[in-house]
This record gives sequence, C-alpha cells and structure tokens, in this order.
Amino acid sequence: MAGSTGIPSAKDKMLFTPGPLTTSQSVKLAMLRDLGSRDVVFIETVHHIRQTLLDIADVSRQKEYEVVLMQGSGTFGIESVIGSTVPPSGKLLVIINGAYGDRIVKIAKVLKIDTATLKYPQDTLPDPADVERMLTQDPAITNVAIVHCETTTGIINPIEDIGQVVKHHDKKYFVDSMSAFGAILFDFEKCGIDFLVSSANKCIQGVPGFSFAICRRNSLLATQGWARSLSFDLLAQWQGLEADGQFRFTPPTHVILAFKEALGELQAEGGVGGRAARYRVNYEALVAGMRKMGFDEYLPRELQGTIITTFHYPDHPRFQFDEFYARLNDNGFVIYPGKMSNADCFRIGNLGHLFECDMLALLVAIQATLGEMDIELPFD
Amino acid sequence: MAGSTGIPSAKDKMLFTPGPLTTSQSVKLAMLRDLGSRDVVFIETVHHIRQTLLDIADVSRQKEYEVVLMQGSGTFGIESVIGSTVPPSGKLLVIINGAYGDRIVKIAKVLKIDTATLKYPQDTLPDPADVERMLTQDPAITNVAIVHCETTTGIINPIEDIGQVVKHHDKKYFVDSMSAFGAILFDFEKCGIDFLVSSANKCIQGVPGFSFAICRRNSLLATQGWARSLSFDLLAQWQGLEADGQFRFTPPTHVILAFKEALGELQAEGGVGGRAARYRVNYEALVAGMRKMGFDEYLPRELQGTIITTFHYPDHPRFQFDEFYARLNDNGFVIYPGKMSNADCFRIGNLGHLFECDMLALLVAIQATLGEMDIELPFD
Repeated sequence: MAGSTGIPSAKDKMLFTPGPLTTSQSVKLAMLRDLGSRDVVFIETVHHIRQTLLDIADVSRQKEYEVVLMQGSGTFGIESVIGSTVPPSGKLLVIINGAYGDRIVKIAKVLKIDTATLKYPQDTLPDPADVERMLTQDPAITNVAIVHCETTTGIINPIEDIGQVVKHHDKKYFVDSMSAFGAILFDFEKCGIDFLVSSANKCIQGVPGFSFAICRRNSLLATQGWARSLSFDLLAQWQGLEADGQFRFTPPTHVILAFKEALGELQAEGGVGGRAARYRVNYEALVAGMRKMGFDEYLPRELQGTIITTFHYPDHPRFQFDEFYARLNDNGFVIYPGKMSNADCFRIGNLGHLFECDMLALLVAIQATLGEMDIELPFD
Repeated sequence: MAGSTGIPSAKDKMLFTPGPLTTSQSVKLAMLRDLGSRDVVFIETVHHIRQTLLDIADVSRQKEYEVVLMQGSGTFGIESVIGSTVPPSGKLLVIINGAYGDRIVKIAKVLKIDTATLKYPQDTLPDPADVERMLTQDPAITNVAIVHCETTTGIINPIEDIGQVVKHHDKKYFVDSMSAFGAILFDFEKCGIDFLVSSANKCIQGVPGFSFAICRRNSLLATQGWARSLSFDLLAQWQGLEADGQFRFTPPTHVILAFKEALGELQAEGGVGGRAARYRVNYEALVAGMRKMGFDEYLPRELQGTIITTFHYPDHPRFQFDEFYARLNDNGFVIYPGKMSNADCFRIGNLGHLFECDMLALLVAIQATLGEMDIELPFD
C-alpha cells in the first residue's frame, strides 16, 4: 500500500498477466521528470524511440519503414491503423482465432468499414490456403488483418505464410503484434507487413499509455484523406512527428521516458533474441511445474507461444477459479482469468520484469493455494 | 539530464506552459508502482477519482452526474464527447474565439458531423444574443460546444450566460474546460452543462495520459448507439467502469495513480478556491513584473483569466522570439510560443506546481535575458 507520500511502503504484487505488467524499478524511476513536449531532450527521446523500434523490427537498413506513436491503449493504436489505412470504399478481411481478432471486426463495424472474416476455433491456426481462396473469390478486399500472438490463448499465428499470400494478391497487410513484438523473432520484410501495432506495456516492458505502429512508408503515404478520426489520423500523426519531432496533441511525456528506459533494458538483455530466451525459460519452468501438479495446457505445445499460457481448470470438485484467483492475489501473485466462451481456462503471463525465480515462486504459491483449498496433488 | 539509473541528476526546467506542466515530486513518486488493472487497490483508485471529480465540480449531491475517464490526450477526450453525443443526424454549433474552438470543428468535420459556427476575434467574448439568434434561426442544431478558457489566449468565456441560452432552447451543451477545470469556480448546474471535458495534466496537476468527462447521466444514457468509434465510445466506457470498475481497454495505471495524488494535493490546497487563489497570486506577480519591463498583455485585463497570460512581442528591433525563447530555455525556464495568426505573441502559464517565488524567478530570468539580447528596459 502507498503511504501518504505516495511511495510504496511494501512490495507490489507480481503481475503474471498480459498487462499492465510488472516493470523494472529503473523503468518507473525514469518517470520522475517533467519535460516540456517541445523540449529538445524530449524531442530527442521520441526520435530515439522511433529509431530504436525500427532497429528492433530489424528494418532500419531498408529505409522504407516509419514509426508512429499514438497516445492511449493498444486498442487505440489498432483503431488508428484500421480507421486510417482502409480506403473509403475498401474492405477488410479479418482472420480470427480469438477475442482480439473479434475486436478488430468490432472496430471496423463501428467505423462502418466493410468487413469479411475467416474465423477459426481458438485452438486452431489459420490456414493460408483459406486466405488464398478468400482473396481470389472476393476482389473487393483491400486490406487483411491478423493477430500475431492471440492474447486470448497465447497461440502464435503464421504471419509469414499468410503475409506471402496477402502480398501475392497485392493487398495491404496489418499485423496486431500487441503481445508478441519485442519477444518473438520474425522477418518483418518476408512477412510483407504494411502496418504493425504493439504497445508500450507488453514485451518491451514499458508502462501503459501509448502504442506504436511500424508502417511501410509508401503504404502510409497512400492513405492521405482516409482517416475517420482527427485524433487517430495515423498519417497526420506521422507528419507531425516528422515536421518538428512533436506530437500533434499532448504526449504522455512520463510514460514515454519510461519507454526509452525499457528499450535500453531490452537492448541490454540482448534484444529480441535475449528477451525471447528469458520468456522461454519462464515458460518452460511454468509449464513443467504446472504439469507436475496436474494442470493441462489448453493449446497443443506446438501452437503455444512462450509469452502467455492458457491452462484448463483442473477437473476437481473443490476447484473454484474465483477463490483460487483471490487467494493467489492475496498472497501477492496476480494471474489472469480466461477469455473463452467454450472452455474453462485461466491464463498466466511470462512477460514483464519476471524471471525464472519468479515463476518458481508462483508455482510454490499455486501449490500452497491448492493445499489451502484442500485439493490433493497431482489431480490425475 | 537523466543518468543511467533514470534518476534525474539535476533539477528539471520549470514549465511555464499550458502543459505538460511542472508537477510535484509526490505526484511523480506515486507512479513507482505496478498495479494490475483488476487489482482492488486500482479499482478503488479509479472509483475515488471519479467521485472526487464530482466533488470538485460540486455536483455530488445532485446524483445526476457521472464521470468517464478516457485514455489519451485532452483532444482524445473531446473527440470522444463530440463523436459520441451528437446524434447521427444531429448538428453541432461551435462557438469559437481561438484555436481550440477551431479544433472542435475539425474533429466534427472528420467525423462528418454537420456543423455551424459562431466565430469571434480571439480577443472578443462570444455574445449570448448571437447564440440565441443562431439557435432560433437554425432548429437543426442539436448540440452546442464552447471552450471555457481558450488556451490560445487565456480568455475566459461566459459559459454560464451562454449555457442558459442553450438550455432555454433545450440543446445539449458541451464545455471544453481543459485549461480551466479545477482552478476556476463556476456553478456547473447553473451553466446547464451536459458534458464537460478536462485532462489529467492541467489545473489538477497530474501527469499527461488521460482525460475525463463529467456528464449529465440522462444526457449520456440518451446517446446509445451514437458513438462513431469503439475506443472513443463514451457511453460504453462509462458502462464498463460501472459494471466492474474497470476500463474496457488497458488503462494508464501509473498516470492514474499520479492523478489520485494530485487530487489529494488539490484538496489540501483548499480545493478549487485555494488553487484559483494561488494561480491569481502567480498571475498578479507575473503581470506586475512584465508590465514594469514594458510588456503588454494581448487581452484587456477584464477578459484575461489567471491561468495563461498572452503577451505581445515588445516593439524592439533586437527582439527575436526564437532567441528569447532559447535563452530562457537554456537557463531552465520554459515559456510557450503564441498560436495566433494575427498578432505576434507568446504565452506564459501560471498553472502547475508553480508558486509566486517561481514567477519572480522567471521575471528575473526574463530581465537578464533581455539584457543579454542588449534590449534596454523598459521598452516604452
């Protein structure tokens, strides 16, 4: 709890969630400054962030990509891309195998954008052949959207195979890489991505408050006049950043300072490869311990990413998720409920400033909690 | 400059700007926590903030008002209200005497909302009789928007007199109180306000990252199905907050913790009256010192608010604003350029964690800077 000074007087709970997540103390300490939005230090910070994101995507050399920062949550960034990059009479194909694919459709519908969908069960990978068929049958489609790591389950979608189909048909390709970017190695160019969105508060481990889009410059420049919102006008936001290095509207300066620190920590960890390796260690430790207790993963191992893992409720009469969640929470470990209609599941995130020892501590807490609930181990 | 630890190793510049502004250290220290968005402490924080904003508006007793928090900058909050509360076939009258009135029109136009405007010079108060005439002549108008304190100049618009006209015609009334709310005493009910927007990073002195709308509940409930955006859906955002205390999409948790601290400091200062008194002291000290040097205010004194003050460039051959700005900035004092096409002006903000001694320090710095620029004082 925070004392009257605002300084935490005890350790905060550890967040094993898809975000907001546990960040390093140095990331938070970077927020102890008030910089003006026209200040040269702040403008250099924004420039540094935009350049570093290109480096992380490994597309700096090409000089064909641009980074746009957008205030708000990750969903705001996605709405910005959908609302700004689908032409006025365009049609968006959304490939769906989870709640975040559904959300893209919801955004498009509110914006009165014509949509088509390819919907799969949440434990199933989209098939590039279906995309091929869809694009052949419906030439009205101008844009294709897919979620990279579906936060609903943690499944990793085949963005490269699908991207090649999309590019073969010369459509614009949007990847929602919210829960993946920064912790999964992939070839941005081979995927044929025109627009990718992620947020400050996922695998780069900043604090929440803005998202970013990595855009193919020519695809971005082609969107002049298409934006369906002033605030979310992706091209105008880019033009503002290019013109004088400033945001069009007040930026979350403190959150941006934290993000710069987070980017430095990502690089110090060995970049995307280093971070992916730590998340894999976290994941392996988690799954080994959970299996030992009798928990089953929702996804087959070959589809499961190492960022978020979904587990079935144990088949035990005394297991009540709400009680399990609350007891763990009271002991300082925050997990995440499921988001599925067809299966009783919960989720555990391996992302954030979490290490193998934290995963082991969580496992000890889960075991103790099940003991308190009088559930004998292993279940099966 | 920040060291490698992220901890500032020297005092930051003081921000005499309309925002981002200088905040107290305790407001910034409140951000040194990672709370989950479902955490009971965080949910209580959001609840406390929403309730306290009603108290500050002095409309808690009525039980007719609701607070909605919206991620992003202040403009995002304004777009949320415009896009969500003008009916599909509605028409918005915008009363304009500065750049922020113009911005409301821009937002409406991108959203394809029919608009009418009443435009005045930037040093002129809108006349309620004009609003009366406009509403009588054009019955298609459903909503009326006005800026409370125009950040362009610092002018304070007569929101109560105009509000009574708007209510007499039974139209919905939106007040953009970005640079006023929290430091100007006014009677919310007598103004007949349906929707008011301000941001975390203005007179309440939080850090930037979200805005808030104070809404008449019945007016908000009437907007079902009108929102032109998923992210900016004001009613859905409220419904989400009411249902489980949570945001629909990831909230800027750290910024929200800072805001709670800032609200406590506002209350400790004596609420709106106390803060208004400090800003008046800041303003009086500023204007007295500036006049002594020969600077003239852009606005007649009776129109000038005490939050932001606009000054003419001195009529002196060696005065170059860019040089003046840069020299002051290098000495640790950040002022703000003008935003007017018809007059060469700059602005000085009295808002933020600034006290009379800070204004006096600024005056000393301005005098020294003019000396460095070989400009003798007073000018006239």
